[in-house]
Amino acid sequence: MKRIVNEGVLWVTQPDKSRTTVKIYGRSYKIVGKENSEHVRRVAGLVDEKMQEIHDVNKSLDTTSLAVLTAVNTMNDYIKLKEDYEVLQNLLEEKEE
Amino acid sequence: MKRIVNEGVLWVTQPDKSRTTVKIYGRSYKIVGKENSEHVRRVAGLVDEKMQEIHDVNKSLDTTSLAVLTAVNTMNDYIKLKEDYEVLQNLLEEKEE
Repeated sequence: MKRIVNEGVLWVTQPDKSRTTVKIYGRSYKIVGKENSEHVRRVAGLVDEKMQEIHDVNKSLDTTSLAVLTAVNTMNDYIKLKEDYEVLQNLLEEKEE
Repeated sequence: MKRIVNEGVLWVTQPDKSRTTVKIYGRSYKIVGKENSEHVRRVAGLVDEKMQEIHDVNKSLDTTSLAVLTAVNTMNDYIKLKEDYEVLQNLLEEKEE
């Protein structure tokens, strides 16, 4: 999913694409991509939720920090899950031997 | 990992914590949390890299959009991996029956 943003519009550089307008932390983005609209809305909703959660903990946070922080948290979750995934993969390989 | 940001400083609200200063897209954040410094630096480095990649595709992007976009991309990766993880879990359960 590569996206290009221009004046609040996110574009995904892919053919046969869906177009979905989402609102993340009060700002609208038009997301164009191969993912279907339902999926795009789900992803955007989760990001919006995380930003809101972090805002609730510190109301003085500026939007950029909030978004960076959300990215850091999500990346941390991703890396942890990736490690768990590799553990499962190894277990499965062992069982298949 | 709950973090509070104040004037460019990220704080994670947890006891027995490490303190790590990282630079993400030209801005310094002091991250305090239970993760070790090496891990925090790795996570921050990946976020910085993603923001840079998206910037390279559209240089007119403002920092907030870049960060939101990075969060959206990472969340999408997370959800996809989560689905793959569940598939593996089911496979493993089947094998154990």
